[in-house]
Amino acid sequence: LLCYRPLVVRMAQKQNYWANIEADIQTHLQKAIPIRTPVSVFEPMHYLTFAAPRTTAPALCIAACELVGGDRTEAMAAAAAIQLMHAASYTHQHLPLTDRPRPKPTIEHKFNPNIELLTADGIMPFGFELLAESMDSGHINADRILRVIVEISQATGSRGVVDGQFRGLDLTQSDNEGSSDLGVIEYVSKKKDGELHACAAACGAILGGGSEEEIENLRKYGLYAGMIQGLLYGVGRNEKGVKEMVEKLRTSAMKELENFKYREIEAISSLVEAELISSF
Amino acid sequence: LLCYRPLVVRMAQKQNYWANIEADIQTHLQKAIPIRTPVSVFEPMHYLTFAAPRTTAPALCIAACELVGGDRTEAMAAAAAIQLMHAASYTHQHLPLTDRPRPKPTIEHKFNPNIELLTADGIMPFGFELLAESMDSGHINADRILRVIVEISQATGSRGVVDGQFRGLDLTQSDNEGSSDLGVIEYVSKKKDGELHACAAACGAILGGGSEEEIENLRKYGLYAGMIQGLLYGVGRNEKGVKEMVEKLRTSAMKELENFKYREIEAISSLVEAELISSF
Repeated sequence: LLCYRPLVVRMAQKQNYWANIEADIQTHLQKAIPIRTPVSVFEPMHYLTFAAPRTTAPALCIAACELVGGDRTEAMAAAAAIQLMHAASYTHQHLPLTDRPRPKPTIEHKFNPNIELLTADGIMPFGFELLAESMDSGHINADRILRVIVEISQATGSRGVVDGQFRGLDLTQSDNEGSSDLGVIEYVSKKKDGELHACAAACGAILGGGSEEEIENLRKYGLYAGMIQGLLYGVGRNEKGVKEMVEKLRTSAMKELENFKYREIEAISSLVEAELISSF
Repeated sequence: LLCYRPLVVRMAQKQNYWANIEADIQTHLQKAIPIRTPVSVFEPMHYLTFAAPRTTAPALCIAACELVGGDRTEAMAAAAAIQLMHAASYTHQHLPLTDRPRPKPTIEHKFNPNIELLTADGIMPFGFELLAESMDSGHINADRILRVIVEISQATGSRGVVDGQFRGLDLTQSDNEGSSDLGVIEYVSKKKDGELHACAAACGAILGGGSEEEIENLRKYGLYAGMIQGLLYGVGRNEKGVKEMVEKLRTSAMKELENFKYREIEAISSLVEAELISSF
């Protein structure tokens, strides 16, 4: 029996935990989006779903479900829906519209803009379809699924990610990174990455059968964890004061996990650990 | 007692029926989308929801619900969601992308393209949010709502409206209206207007408590009624052979209503009546 596990081993175990969840979500999505007829529609749908850069929100949804004692399969449709909403949103953010400068860094466009626009329009409702259909697997309660649909709609819609994108337009279009307002950076990271992760964690907890208190703890944990990601990798990452903000968020995030002291929090808490974040 | 009602009176009554439904849907949407903070998000959301040209699909959803004996309020959230999906889709179709010619007729853009793109991205999930929340009104069954969410996702997504838009790109971008393939015109009208109306009618019947047979009759009625609208007002409306196609669809549509002989079909059937269509 191991009484002492060196840091590097613990790190590897945590990375394995997240990698394993990621692989399960990818497998689920690969099955959910086969390249079928009409191929002109499903080929770009398949491509754009997997072309978007990773976000840790879907994996957090699964981890939250497992933390409250749920089974991974119960949160899989929600995790997939969150990934789909993220992919659709990413695609639309990188469309070359006539009134905006090309986003930097410029991403590779495999399909023409019109196709990418429409494809993402198809990806969005598909996320809700997967969720609503997950009731048919029998072991998931319809009320919980409806609650999760409201959560995801709100987080990805006009009071969440879309609001963050509105406010973020100024940031991305400004070349002068040094002059951004820290308050705006914080707001954008909260609305975009923060609320997406908050929603993901809350949905995982709802579907896994967590108590209302556990759901709210995990929602806040997700909010802070998401904001950390947004601040470290977002447009304002080089601003003065961002590092201090991240440290505070890390402390707040860990506090939310205190109520889970009788559970295995090592894996989920590693999402905000400095060493692990840099390895994603 | 009136034993004989002249045509013009019957016409007026039917128009009143549809106008009354339309007014109720508009009132519901006005309440559902208040102009609140963040105003930069909600003002365009409110504007674009009502700026899209009318489609008869949401009203058909209510009419189908009433035909199977349901109460109008039971189908209201679904009707609103269908209107929202239509508005979002219309907005995206009229964005000035770098790779496509400006759509004809050019619509007035009150907001810049980036804002319109994001706003429609917020309108889509909002439709699902309204639907999922409608469970809270207490008298609607969660299983029925989930079924309706699947219906709307499929009809507006990659196998429905989006597929029609893909195929329709060729039609709208061609100036040579006389050379379009009748088969393509039929396919596009089926996918865009047809399946949206089919879904609307089926959802109304599901929410109103219709039998499986009634749901399928109304789904087909909606498909034909929607195709008629698409053919009469769509890009291929001047093609040779379209009028004959419309006449056939009208006959097929009326057949689907035969199973409702003990109910009041006069109002709903007027959706495919030649005189009434032209007055919408």
